[in-house]
Amino acid sequence: MKEIIAIVRMNKVGATKQALIEAGATGFTAVKALGRGKMVEDTGVIAGRKADLMAMANEEDVKETELLIDGFLNGARLYPMRMFDIITHDYDVTKIVQTIMEVNRTTFNVGDGKIFVLPVADAIRVRTKEAGDAAL
Amino acid sequence: MKEIIAIVRMNKVGATKQALIEAGATGFTAVKALGRGKMVEDTGVIAGRKADLMAMANEEDVKETELLIDGFLNGARLYPMRMFDIITHDYDVTKIVQTIMEVNRTTFNVGDGKIFVLPVADAIRVRTKEAGDAAL
Amino acid sequence: MKEIIAIVRMNKVGATKQALIEAGATGFTAVKALGRGKMVEDTGVIAGRKADLMAMANEEDVKETELLIDGFLNGARLYPMRMFDIITHDYDVTKIVQTIMEVNRTTFNVGDGKIFVLPVADAIRVRTKEAGDAAL
Repeated sequence: MKEIIAIVRMNKVGATKQALIEAGATGFTAVKALGRGKMVEDTGVIAGRKADLMAMANEEDVKETELLIDGFLNGARLYPMRMFDIITHDYDVTKIVQTIMEVNRTTFNVGDGKIFVLPVADAIRVRTKEAGDAAL
Repeated sequence: MKEIIAIVRMNKVGATKQALIEAGATGFTAVKALGRGKMVEDTGVIAGRKADLMAMANEEDVKETELLIDGFLNGARLYPMRMFDIITHDYDVTKIVQTIMEVNRTTFNVGDGKIFVLPVADAIRVRTKEAGDAAL
Repeated sequence: MKEIIAIVRMNKVGATKQALIEAGATGFTAVKALGRGKMVEDTGVIAGRKADLMAMANEEDVKETELLIDGFLNGARLYPMRMFDIITHDYDVTKIVQTIMEVNRTTFNVGDGKIFVLPVADAIRVRTKEAGDAAL
């Protein structure tokens, strides 16, 4: 049994939910979170990424986009995101991870999220008192 | 040391909290979440469960109940629930799990929640810098 | 790879965030939670702690402070707090834990929070499909 924690963009929440159901996930929760990924240290890379992102911003959003990017790059700002928490059979981990990756890859070059896999010792279904894999 | 994650109905939050305190839980947190359990695939079972749930709905809630059930069954809707997170001694896991089960079993036949048990490598109390079991 | 869960006071959220970035954390999320620590059972200790806390309350907050403390001590009340979730390399755990402790120790004698360390089996960066330590 494993816990899969997936951190996804807010605008990918609906698609991720639907994909998990279609992939046969045995159950999951989603929680609102603020967060950030790895701090980018190379100023050349930062300038390049900022230029990429600015080029994609709608004309009316340019100023807001720049502030958002600067706040992210200097660490002043955390981004709203959603954390999915899926407990699954060992043999379903690859399929679930694959599903989440397919739905969440974008044309942006940062911020597509991360997926973590953690060991789970046991599961219990409250209604039936079933334990272990049978409870998923 | 173990982490116990318990997913409970919203109307069981107060009772679960009180039961955890009475059971001597060394500390816990509760977070708002949206989620769903296992997708039921057998249409006969679905029809039966829907009939059971509809029979329990108050007269004025029938329409809303039907929409909720349909949304749940077809995967369009996640349910608001609460996730409790309890870090506890190995020797208290059985008692805590038992306590959560007793408080959360209802006459409904779906949705009573699940409990997961995860390994924990270490704990630290910030105030005293105590580590390991002494920090719980 | 490890997951570090840190439960911190609401008024330490900004400082904790900044300290994590300065310590080079490879990414983290923060979630709103309600919670409580270990139930204090010794009534002498309770009375002493209450007196300490009351002595620190501003004059205009005395009544509210007393209600808060009583609610906490009798278990009727959970406290708003923030849960940080940091996934990090094994070799960074000590540094991150140290950083969180330094920022969160106060002159209060209860409620400085706790830190938990959990094993992580794998990590995947959605954008590049990198796995393991390279994904952090």
